[in-house]
Amino acid sequence: MYNFNFQVATKVLFGEGQIKHLGEEIAKYTDKVLLVYGGGSIKRNGIYDSAVEQLKKHKVKVFELSNVDPNPRIESVREGVAICKENSIGGVLAIGGGSSIDCSKVISAGVKYDGDPWDLVVDKSLVKDSIPVFTVLTLAATGSEMNGNAVISNMETNEKIGTYGRCLIPKLSVLDPTYTFSVPARHTAAGTADIISHTFENYFTNVDGGYLQSRMAEAILKTCFHYGPIAYNDPTNYDARANLMWASSWAINGLISAGSANNWSVHPMEHELSAFYDVTHGEGLAILTPHWMRHILSDDTVSKFVEYGVNVWGIDSSLDRFDIANMAIDKTEEFFTKELHIPATLRELNLTNKDFDKMAKKAVQVKGGSIQGFVELHAEDVKKIYEMSL
Amino acid sequence: MYNFNFQVATKVLFGEGQIKHLGEEIAKYTDKVLLVYGGGSIKRNGIYDSAVEQLKKHKVKVFELSNVDPNPRIESVREGVAICKENSIGGVLAIGGGSSIDCSKVISAGVKYDGDPWDLVVDKSLVKDSIPVFTVLTLAATGSEMNGNAVISNMETNEKIGTYGRCLIPKLSVLDPTYTFSVPARHTAAGTADIISHTFENYFTNVDGGYLQSRMAEAILKTCFHYGPIAYNDPTNYDARANLMWASSWAINGLISAGSANNWSVHPMEHELSAFYDVTHGEGLAILTPHWMRHILSDDTVSKFVEYGVNVWGIDSSLDRFDIANMAIDKTEEFFTKELHIPATLRELNLTNKDFDKMAKKAVQVKGGSIQGFVELHAEDVKKIYEMSL
Repeated sequence: MYNFNFQVATKVLFGEGQIKHLGEEIAKYTDKVLLVYGGGSIKRNGIYDSAVEQLKKHKVKVFELSNVDPNPRIESVREGVAICKENSIGGVLAIGGGSSIDCSKVISAGVKYDGDPWDLVVDKSLVKDSIPVFTVLTLAATGSEMNGNAVISNMETNEKIGTYGRCLIPKLSVLDPTYTFSVPARHTAAGTADIISHTFENYFTNVDGGYLQSRMAEAILKTCFHYGPIAYNDPTNYDARANLMWASSWAINGLISAGSANNWSVHPMEHELSAFYDVTHGEGLAILTPHWMRHILSDDTVSKFVEYGVNVWGIDSSLDRFDIANMAIDKTEEFFTKELHIPATLRELNLTNKDFDKMAKKAVQVKGGSIQGFVELHAEDVKKIYEMSL
Repeated sequence: MYNFNFQVATKVLFGEGQIKHLGEEIAKYTDKVLLVYGGGSIKRNGIYDSAVEQLKKHKVKVFELSNVDPNPRIESVREGVAICKENSIGGVLAIGGGSSIDCSKVISAGVKYDGDPWDLVVDKSLVKDSIPVFTVLTLAATGSEMNGNAVISNMETNEKIGTYGRCLIPKLSVLDPTYTFSVPARHTAAGTADIISHTFENYFTNVDGGYLQSRMAEAILKTCFHYGPIAYNDPTNYDARANLMWASSWAINGLISAGSANNWSVHPMEHELSAFYDVTHGEGLAILTPHWMRHILSDDTVSKFVEYGVNVWGIDSSLDRFDIANMAIDKTEEFFTKELHIPATLRELNLTNKDFDKMAKKAVQVKGGSIQGFVELHAEDVKKIYEMSL
């Protein structure tokens, strides 16, 4: 186990109706807030009205930035920063999923930065200060509600890049599972796949000794495998929505990566799918993951797959090691395709192989020449995995 | 799942050598600190010198309160408060296990309180403000390094009472597993039993829907069952010490109790053993726990024991439910007695049954007439469990 620092100071208000504390909590920090959201769904389902009512009650003046894209764009960030600077706004409140939250985070740092906020995306060392970020979560997926990560897209340059800052960790997150009751089945599936993938990226590690972290990761995986299909089929099941929401936060807030190398594999490959084709992130991850697993399965890695298969899927530990590994991979693929009804192939998302060369090179180039994950991946590995996924 | 708030802002510096950051971190808060510790072991093993060197380097003046008892007493708290008030000290640094940390917490609140600090123990609603608490942990057990709880004893009144304050959560905790290498086997065992008991108290709950929390609890239990004996037999095994240390923090920082009722059973019973006989807390818990389990096993509770037996001990789920439950309880008892070599009976700790009546009445009286835990326990239940444990 490597040395690590752990600190997640986010105040989480979890459960139905917790938005009633939003105004009093935000008023502790500022009397002017930028409200950031995507489309009109939060107006239709009443969350917008509840939030604004609470803020007004506590004399917090609301400015707005709407129409944030599912893959949030740097143009939205620039617009938000301008509004904040013009009006001396002291905090950013995201209502939505990872898109609105990630956009809000980079806005919050952009307010304290003199240059173009794209600089903060390209070079996270420039993220030094920010105004406070608050969130009201409406989708269980990215975990952005409880960490300092943000992913922003630049469609001009076909780039989708992640940045990070400790100051970007939200001060407050309202997690009301009922706010995800109206999430369509397809996005429930994609969000669940995203949580699972975050967990895999941390679980499949070469760093020994993080036993507690591995068992915690298995706890999150079991929760997703148990409740993902329930939420898919029964969207107003409170326990399913609550467990998926809370799992989303813990998959990627530092708990299960503590002491490990934190070198991810599937996300860098998927980012190119989203950057080139605007693929839904969780669907891209679900399609790539089983093929990534098959591609890297070897004598060196089989023991980790056995651990996964036995502990998470309950496969008989006395079977042949490679049989266990392959069964675990098959079960993972079947879960995505048969339980969550995510397409099994990139072809079903209307992709062809025409950009695979370029995408594979880009995926490794962003990482300095190769993806130094659980198993090192070069451009030819990535291309192979794209082809297996087609 | 009930609604809950979760916030644990402690900055954890985890790993060998992390004490090198102690001075710079504490200097952010204050230039005068009260150093609180127990016996002389931290002087013998060099931790005291390392800490003082770091503090001096960052110009933090050190005052001292030593000889804190294993069950920290209100007299030590009073003494610490007096030193802090006299010298306008701005922070309390505990070096030790739960005893020094708990003592430091109530000192930190006592500094901001006008009356006798025992008031803060008896009535936690009075804990409203404090000076910052910092910790350097030398024993994996109580989890006090990452929560707002403190237990203080008053030997005059035979009372051992827990208090709580959000302001008591340490601002900084240095968790260096090598600092526990010198913990004697007996205390390693007792500390591991304490972590396990904290986890059980949260795991055995009547509140449905905390699926993720239950799986997280199982992760902690598996970690203790795996590494407890390794640390016992091989005290300088880094991974064993590291995993137990990190497990201690997560067993009782709010993660696995979130959304649950948080009504404990075995701790209130054990507190009377410690209050009357100064029994080592973890040993008392280990002895009582299997008998508590047997006493409450019924048609109403068997399913939780099956969950425990199947998920944690890997017992075949197709067996009879009560057989699974009894096997799980037996395995728990065998773990404590055969793997951790903790005495199986109170008799071995030189207790007799002479005070059982008084102790049982006290245990329920503190809780308002009965222990409203996983199963409600009246004085006669507690007495029965003491007798089974004798």
